[in-house]
Amino acid sequence: YHRLSIMLTIYSSVRMRENGKTREKTLTMGTLNPQVKAVEYAVRGPIVTKAGDIERGLQQGQKHPFTEVIKANIGDSHAMGQKPITFLRQVVALCSFPELLDSSSFPEDAKQRARRILQGCGGQSLGSYSASQGVDCIRQDVAVYIEQRDKGVPADWDNIYLTTGASDGIVSILKMLVSGQGRSRSGVMIPIPQYPLYSAAISEMEAVQINYYLDEDNCWALDINELHRAYQAAKEHCHPRVICIINPGNPTGQVQSKKCIEEVLHFAYEENLFVMSDEVYQDNVYSPDCQFHSFKKVLYEMGPEYFNTVELASFHSTSKGYSGECGFRGGYMEVLNLDLEVKAQLVKLLSIRLCPPVSGQAAMDVIVNPPLPHEPSYLQFHKEKSAVLGALAEKAQMTEQILNTVPGIKCNPVQGAMYAFPRIFIPPRAVEAAMSLGMSPDMMYCLRLLEETGICLVPGSGFGQREGTYHFRMTILPTTEKLKVLLEKLRDFHIKFLKEYAPLEEPKRSEDDTQEALKQFR
Amino acid sequence: YHRLSIMLTIYSSVRMRENGKTREKTLTMGTLNPQVKAVEYAVRGPIVTKAGDIERGLQQGQKHPFTEVIKANIGDSHAMGQKPITFLRQVVALCSFPELLDSSSFPEDAKQRARRILQGCGGQSLGSYSASQGVDCIRQDVAVYIEQRDKGVPADWDNIYLTTGASDGIVSILKMLVSGQGRSRSGVMIPIPQYPLYSAAISEMEAVQINYYLDEDNCWALDINELHRAYQAAKEHCHPRVICIINPGNPTGQVQSKKCIEEVLHFAYEENLFVMSDEVYQDNVYSPDCQFHSFKKVLYEMGPEYFNTVELASFHSTSKGYSGECGFRGGYMEVLNLDLEVKAQLVKLLSIRLCPPVSGQAAMDVIVNPPLPHEPSYLQFHKEKSAVLGALAEKAQMTEQILNTVPGIKCNPVQGAMYAFPRIFIPPRAVEAAMSLGMSPDMMYCLRLLEETGICLVPGSGFGQREGTYHFRMTILPTTEKLKVLLEKLRDFHIKFLKEYAPLEEPKRSEDDTQEALKQFR
Repeated sequence: YHRLSIMLTIYSSVRMRENGKTREKTLTMGTLNPQVKAVEYAVRGPIVTKAGDIERGLQQGQKHPFTEVIKANIGDSHAMGQKPITFLRQVVALCSFPELLDSSSFPEDAKQRARRILQGCGGQSLGSYSASQGVDCIRQDVAVYIEQRDKGVPADWDNIYLTTGASDGIVSILKMLVSGQGRSRSGVMIPIPQYPLYSAAISEMEAVQINYYLDEDNCWALDINELHRAYQAAKEHCHPRVICIINPGNPTGQVQSKKCIEEVLHFAYEENLFVMSDEVYQDNVYSPDCQFHSFKKVLYEMGPEYFNTVELASFHSTSKGYSGECGFRGGYMEVLNLDLEVKAQLVKLLSIRLCPPVSGQAAMDVIVNPPLPHEPSYLQFHKEKSAVLGALAEKAQMTEQILNTVPGIKCNPVQGAMYAFPRIFIPPRAVEAAMSLGMSPDMMYCLRLLEETGICLVPGSGFGQREGTYHFRMTILPTTEKLKVLLEKLRDFHIKFLKEYAPLEEPKRSEDDTQEALKQFR
Repeated sequence: YHRLSIMLTIYSSVRMRENGKTREKTLTMGTLNPQVKAVEYAVRGPIVTKAGDIERGLQQGQKHPFTEVIKANIGDSHAMGQKPITFLRQVVALCSFPELLDSSSFPEDAKQRARRILQGCGGQSLGSYSASQGVDCIRQDVAVYIEQRDKGVPADWDNIYLTTGASDGIVSILKMLVSGQGRSRSGVMIPIPQYPLYSAAISEMEAVQINYYLDEDNCWALDINELHRAYQAAKEHCHPRVICIINPGNPTGQVQSKKCIEEVLHFAYEENLFVMSDEVYQDNVYSPDCQFHSFKKVLYEMGPEYFNTVELASFHSTSKGYSGECGFRGGYMEVLNLDLEVKAQLVKLLSIRLCPPVSGQAAMDVIVNPPLPHEPSYLQFHKEKSAVLGALAEKAQMTEQILNTVPGIKCNPVQGAMYAFPRIFIPPRAVEAAMSLGMSPDMMYCLRLLEETGICLVPGSGFGQREGTYHFRMTILPTTEKLKVLLEKLRDFHIKFLKEYAPLEEPKRSEDDTQEALKQFR
């Protein structure tokens, strides 16, 4: 098909030349917005495109050394077989087709939620635009949820904005914060490794990206000294105005300690930084030693001098947690201590896109307002939620343990979120081979992994990593059975890869270790 | 509440000064992104905010000279009482809660649509991310729809991108097209009056807005000479690269003739302009003398030299037409003759936001793939669709006729879309009064209208108008009964306004004319 397109292009330009003029397209790589060109977004980058091509090829009967592509590149739970939470879908279906409110096959608590949401919609329809900030009663439910989550720290629904997934909120807040030219241009501190939405948005807005490196040797912890270093270095050439934190970490899976959060907030307070805390994995904490602490709650506990001054935006989403409802594009942000005039500007900015999808808002409402113990759907809801989170916890542990039995792979504990970000040893000869192909070494690694095994991962270079280190990000979302297959295939590939590029080195671990580790998950 | 916030702000800054430092917020009107500050978006501007305040006041028992706010400011059908199309909501509910596929209370054709959509979703769930371009089978359905609409002009689903409402697509394409500095900065030609999404996006991207004025004396027709004038004038200070057309017109309600579209396309071809045709009102044509012609079909009929070269993006949405599903944020764009490398860049840009809401994609699918005559839902679907479009046609005619009986108001025929954009005579003394308040005269007019009658309209200045002329935009969406009330109140207000500011002028028409005109709609 592409060949046909190219032939048509050639044909039509020839024809035009015959007509006596050569016609250039208006929009070419030469005239394209350079900010768009500069953007990179690895989670849906070339590897993923290639995986799609292979998948279509398999369907059309093409031969590959595998029968199935396993996509572990993106946190897309339902695509990996996770079932939707029944209660959430019941409420959305009731809101979508209110005639079902008369049906006896829906539980009363789902109907009550749906009626309440519809009351808040213009014309009682999910088809009306909501206010740009979202449906009032859903914003109120979000505020109540946050107060309960944070053990009574007050939440004002006037500070809640519903969003189109968390990405939309993050981009909107960043957009507000970018100003200045040259040395006074806004600098945005982001963790490395990071979720590439941040680097993409920063590059699109021509802000200055300030990298602070997470400490891989210390379970990807955030080191306050590294923050100071990065800040001081950046001050020379830009105006650092924002610090972004992802907790639990994406792609790194660490869960921040309360002490560490305090240090970050104190730092932000001292340096007058706007804090953006990406907390979309707040329900995804697996390690028994870890606990989720919201930035807001910690700020509150630091006292009013902090709580009443530090500008903080925190983000949540329907896409992660135990519901995994990515397709609904639901989310919210809570913004503290925003200047009143600036608040009006934020609402104006959001109003250009009119409103977040209202069905996504409804899904968000269920997540912040789930069935209570006395309600009819409580037991089933609780069972489904626990099953999802339990399986994720098991898979987090399994992924770490198995990966650590493979020679040349080292994986930190997956304390939370949905990803492992193991470090992989790539022999110097493989590095050279990749360079000669004009490719980053981990990109070559992931490309070969895909071509030889059908496993689709994202190279570490798409998230950022310390110079000379290599990683990949994989989700822990495939079903336990599929994840085992994935990990074994990955192991075999990795050993083969090492043998190919470093044949003389002796592996430090044996295949027996992997089999031993796998046993406990059988 | 606001007073409390202000007191808290003062209190905390006093406290900080006592602590020996004055702390500035990080994000203030002074440090806010100037591009965000520059943006205006009248459809949800100050009048609408005020209307919301008054509405809340009424609910809390505040006294006003009316009992209800009538919002005719935005094309939000369901909020104005229009009922959803049953078939569309059935399909969305089935997709949201697939257990309903076993229910006998849903028709087979709705189930068949839902099964097909779910087949196209990862894990057969609406909760998975779709590809950034949208679900494949929905894009295929869109292509089939376009081919049928355009009587066989070929449509390739590879050129179809599903979007988050039409706004999202429009902003994405504009973003691609903005480049250059100074005199080579991209210029974007937009109609005046325009839908303020365009001016907002242009201002946010710091592109150059090139106004071409629609001809009010000629039913808001697009005059090709005016295009040439605007283009030539703009060439002096920017690089005109795009022309935007809204057909049927928003806010002006005109429907473009085929000849006029040919002229525009020829002009774009000659001047190498990228064409963006906003065709979200393609189903909203009321005048029996008018017909919707898609830009694509006209381009095709101009011959292969045009059809194979002119870069054209056309936009559609679930929000308008007969379905009015604004809250689902569904839409699509078809992009022709895009350079292949640029296409990959567009997909990359779209992928940062991951995907459009999948339930909105499902809604879009129903609109392009409605029940066929032999299917069980056909009759009801057809009845509902005709009822909506029939009522709109009647209200379009009524609005024009009644407004034209009011002295000092002149309204062009509402041939299509959902709005009237009448010209209003504002006496010089009222203009002076507004100026002294630092307000545009039509803003003052609309503000007083809101305060005195509860009717919420948008001033013409939010859409652009020729210097010295004044307008407002009103939707024709209130129910027929409510629309009559609105028009009578508006008439009384306008006459009172004229008497107040031009007491000596004799009105050219009498109240009898209005009553006479109203009669035919009783």
